[in-house]
Amino acid sequence: MGAAERAAKESDEWSGVTPDAARRLVSAAVQAFAERGYHATTTRDIAGRAGMSPAALYIHYKTKEELLYRISGTGHEEALRIMGAAAEAQGSATDRLRDAVRTFARWHAEHHTTARVIQYELQALGAEHYAEIAGLRRRTDRLLRQIIEDGAASGEFRVDDVPGTTLAVLSLCVDVARWFSADGARTPDEVGALYADLVLRMVGAS
Amino acid sequence: MGAAERAAKESDEWSGVTPDAARRLVSAAVQAFAERGYHATTTRDIAGRAGMSPAALYIHYKTKEELLYRISGTGHEEALRIMGAAAEAQGSATDRLRDAVRTFARWHAEHHTTARVIQYELQALGAEHYAEIAGLRRRTDRLLRQIIEDGAASGEFRVDDVPGTTLAVLSLCVDVARWFSADGARTPDEVGALYADLVLRMVGAS
Repeated sequence: MGAAERAAKESDEWSGVTPDAARRLVSAAVQAFAERGYHATTTRDIAGRAGMSPAALYIHYKTKEELLYRISGTGHEEALRIMGAAAEAQGSATDRLRDAVRTFARWHAEHHTTARVIQYELQALGAEHYAEIAGLRRRTDRLLRQIIEDGAASGEFRVDDVPGTTLAVLSLCVDVARWFSADGARTPDEVGALYADLVLRMVGAS
Repeated sequence: MGAAERAAKESDEWSGVTPDAARRLVSAAVQAFAERGYHATTTRDIAGRAGMSPAALYIHYKTKEELLYRISGTGHEEALRIMGAAAEAQGSATDRLRDAVRTFARWHAEHHTTARVIQYELQALGAEHYAEIAGLRRRTDRLLRQIIEDGAASGEFRVDDVPGTTLAVLSLCVDVARWFSADGARTPDEVGALYADLVLRMVGAS
């Protein structure tokens, strides 16, 4: 994928944010946080990257933390939506787990810059925002755990430690955001397929 | 583990760094980078945490990057040493892989603060230092891959994609640093044991 195509894809990621100025600010903030970290980024940096004045930024976001919260909330809601779609689909636990891991790992590859920011900067959220995001994370975890429990109960899976296995599967998928490179050897689809296979082995799928 | 015990353990981690002032600076830098990120941390912050003046810091480290390089080098050398000890031990590929994953995952739990810094701030290294660290990482990867290849060749493992499985195993262990908490439900030893079991499943160990 070329730089222009990547930039277009990254901008698509925030297509739900309106108006256009707010969308540009979110996109600029993700890039700045990813390059320099949250604490080293100023609202002036973000406004500059978006081609706006600091005063124009304040119309949309009162604080830098509000921008991080918007980014984190959007990313975590999407992750929860993906896991929910897989968990609530028809089919065996094997089919649902394969689908969950494939889409969850692929999402972390496709949106690796955003995913890094939301994982690495969790502690920078204010207490109320952190509590809200932690709630989304717990719901995502529970959905995955339920699929693994279902498979263990039906005899499809052989799992010794359901919470530990759930934690490891989530961790494996999330860490795709750290190592994935759009210029690397594997596409997001290939990562998803590889990881679905590896996770079915982890749960001892028959 | 209490705060005092943790502080003692974190300080032990750098016992190879001498003299004492240099060790205190490395330990202070790890804490500062972990809390605020490399780019938001100044040498003044680090000196202050170590109870020293900025001028005293410069006696030991000319730049902030030199401190990061020292931290990253020490951490990566230790990771390589652990992997090497497992890879070169006597025993079946199964025994060596179990040992490699147990010690590598445990290390990332015990040294989670340092491990986060060295993983998340790789891009902040200067070009020459980055190249050197990347070399250590490649050697660690190759050692793990060799164990998996040995097991596939001997028929102990059933692996479809050796490079992909190697990548996933390393990723799983490294990401322990992100989620591990000393106040969490699992000890580093328990994480190591769980992960060794899950990874033997991933490679289809018989």
